[in-house]
Amino acid sequence: MPAPARILVAQGGGPTAVINQSLVGIVLEARRYGQVERIYGARHGVRGVINEDLLDLTQETTEHLERVAATPASALGSTRDKPDLEYCRKMLAVLRAHAITHFFYIGGNDSSDTVRIVADEAAKAGYPLRAIHVPKTIDNDLMGNDHVPGFASAARFVMQAFAGANLDNAALPGVYVAVVMGRHAGFLTAASAAARVGPDDGPHLIYLPERTFEIERFLADVKAVHARLGRCVVAVSEGIHDASGEAIASKLAKGGVERDAHGNVQLSGTGALADLLCDEIKDKLGIKRVRGDTFGYLQRSFLGCVSDVDAREAREVGQRAVQFALLRDANGSVAIRRTGDYAVDLVLQPLEAVAAKTRVMDDAFINAAGNDVTPAFMDYLRPLLGSGLPQAARLRAVSVPKVGT
Amino acid sequence: MPAPARILVAQGGGPTAVINQSLVGIVLEARRYGQVERIYGARHGVRGVINEDLLDLTQETTEHLERVAATPASALGSTRDKPDLEYCRKMLAVLRAHAITHFFYIGGNDSSDTVRIVADEAAKAGYPLRAIHVPKTIDNDLMGNDHVPGFASAARFVMQAFAGANLDNAALPGVYVAVVMGRHAGFLTAASAAARVGPDDGPHLIYLPERTFEIERFLADVKAVHARLGRCVVAVSEGIHDASGEAIASKLAKGGVERDAHGNVQLSGTGALADLLCDEIKDKLGIKRVRGDTFGYLQRSFLGCVSDVDAREAREVGQRAVQFALLRDANGSVAIRRTGDYAVDLVLQPLEAVAAKTRVMDDAFINAAGNDVTPAFMDYLRPLLGSGLPQAARLRAVSVPKVGT
Repeated sequence: MPAPARILVAQGGGPTAVINQSLVGIVLEARRYGQVERIYGARHGVRGVINEDLLDLTQETTEHLERVAATPASALGSTRDKPDLEYCRKMLAVLRAHAITHFFYIGGNDSSDTVRIVADEAAKAGYPLRAIHVPKTIDNDLMGNDHVPGFASAARFVMQAFAGANLDNAALPGVYVAVVMGRHAGFLTAASAAARVGPDDGPHLIYLPERTFEIERFLADVKAVHARLGRCVVAVSEGIHDASGEAIASKLAKGGVERDAHGNVQLSGTGALADLLCDEIKDKLGIKRVRGDTFGYLQRSFLGCVSDVDAREAREVGQRAVQFALLRDANGSVAIRRTGDYAVDLVLQPLEAVAAKTRVMDDAFINAAGNDVTPAFMDYLRPLLGSGLPQAARLRAVSVPKVGT
Repeated sequence: MPAPARILVAQGGGPTAVINQSLVGIVLEARRYGQVERIYGARHGVRGVINEDLLDLTQETTEHLERVAATPASALGSTRDKPDLEYCRKMLAVLRAHAITHFFYIGGNDSSDTVRIVADEAAKAGYPLRAIHVPKTIDNDLMGNDHVPGFASAARFVMQAFAGANLDNAALPGVYVAVVMGRHAGFLTAASAAARVGPDDGPHLIYLPERTFEIERFLADVKAVHARLGRCVVAVSEGIHDASGEAIASKLAKGGVERDAHGNVQLSGTGALADLLCDEIKDKLGIKRVRGDTFGYLQRSFLGCVSDVDAREAREVGQRAVQFALLRDANGSVAIRRTGDYAVDLVLQPLEAVAAKTRVMDDAFINAAGNDVTPAFMDYLRPLLGSGLPQAARLRAVSVPKVGT
């Protein structure tokens, strides 16, 4: 019989539609092992660890856990805390006090860095802890992963939103600009391209944070599409910036912009960027009907918009994390690798490979003009969106000859 | 054999998720009648009529029409034109030139007024025209209707959006304000209440255009909820206004606001109101994490968010419109009446009963404080949202006793 095990799981960073699949994957997989005495969950991520704010997940029924798995947004609660060394030492003290042997942290690159520090400190202290990072982010920006759980469901939302917005814009023509999440990586904004069915379908222009945004170039692009089609649908990443790296949101703002503790301009939870771009189009191009939307929190939390592929893989990374920890006795970060079209393998990569790093879109995924994606990106994206994608169809009836009045 | 019939159908005003069900209901029902020689569709509503921009829907396959029916946003295109007498006379001239015997206009109260004028002018001219208004609006504000096709699917979107936003806000606490469409009627904003499952679920506050919005009262409400729960989710109608009727969006704006030709402040296609309310909360209450979303065009056009009840009824009002026109030889506006829990009947009401009028929420649907809905509204709403509504479930695990570190 292996030594008794006590598991702690936590969720960090922005919620996703499938982050609870990973949570439940960890809990239900861990229940299969006789040596696991307790499975705890920390409320609000690492903050719940240092505050000893823990739930006993051993006492959740399997049926209820399955319902939670199908619910968006971090069921344990999340946090934006980015622990430093001192914070991680406090965490380790709590883990030891509760005799935790295995720590699983579901999150993005900041979370993986936390796991790395905690694992290092445990090793230095001679405390036998296994620490595993379980990948999650709608931004899809984790190194060493083909894609990250949470991205595909958000991408599906963006696709469905743009498919509808394109039809709305075709019905009542004008310019429509929608701002999509993703401060450094443009994957989610790029997913808007999946909305296209016919040759004139939008989004007609896509602007990503991987390229410098030039307002004059943007206006010329919009003008050209509007002249050709009488309308224009534009997808813009919240993270677009000028050549110096300054966010367009702060560059265009006449008044002040909100900055967080790290000096970053607040990009989400405000409609400012969309409104500023719309004002530019109205002022400089003289187009009357210009409308802007900001997808905001809907794209990561909307109830009932999930890619089944994403849900399955999110469950699997949780299950596999437990297997790596309990059967292989290893630390690391679970990663998804694509092995076929479409097939994946789940591997364990060193925490250093993913911690505090950011992956951005490959050059091969962005067109030369920097205002659209390539067919290679569509090949990459399509299998992730899952089954049962809703389909749009437009009338193709012939015109009635005019008789004159 | 009845006299030969030629049908013209058009779509006006804002698109909905099910407006094409009504279009296809009209087209497929009309095909059942041997006297119907042609079924035309006008592109972009009444504008397509005066421009003789017509499609021959007789030449669409049934299979393709069924796909269009399941697609959001006006497939024929829409318009914001509000025809005056001269405009309606031009329309009648085109109808006569194409020997149109039956005109169906799918739209809101402005559209019904157009149908009324066209019908009057035809009668005055002795031209044998049957003109039927087919109801459509996400605002749910047509007189004489229990509810209007398009509302329930938009309500379902709002419910799913708030259910997710509530979970997101529970995971990362703060204040969340989302602005919902509806300039004069609060039905769609009120539908956010359907997102609640547990006692602490948001939206915790709901502000409707049927009540005067007082900023101090609003701030006190938010403060009280935030003090009690550590978080607060707020649903706000884009049409909230002060006691004088001035839109809060223009009242709070420091700079200028956009107005349309009628002097109305632009409410949709901008995130300004949400941002202004968030600024008030940050400035006056000192709460740090305050986020605002504006649901914008997503709530009326999102691909793949449909109430099956709404889709069925939208199809039926189209079918019934053709029956009224061809079998009863009547003009009027099709209306939905609730006859049971849940059952409806479709009636034909006089165009005057609905034309250019606006229905708002009953007092019985709004709580005394004017910041929430009543159980009576929930009884009214629930059957409309349709089957297969996604369900959210939250953890209910017990806390782990603290051991101290």
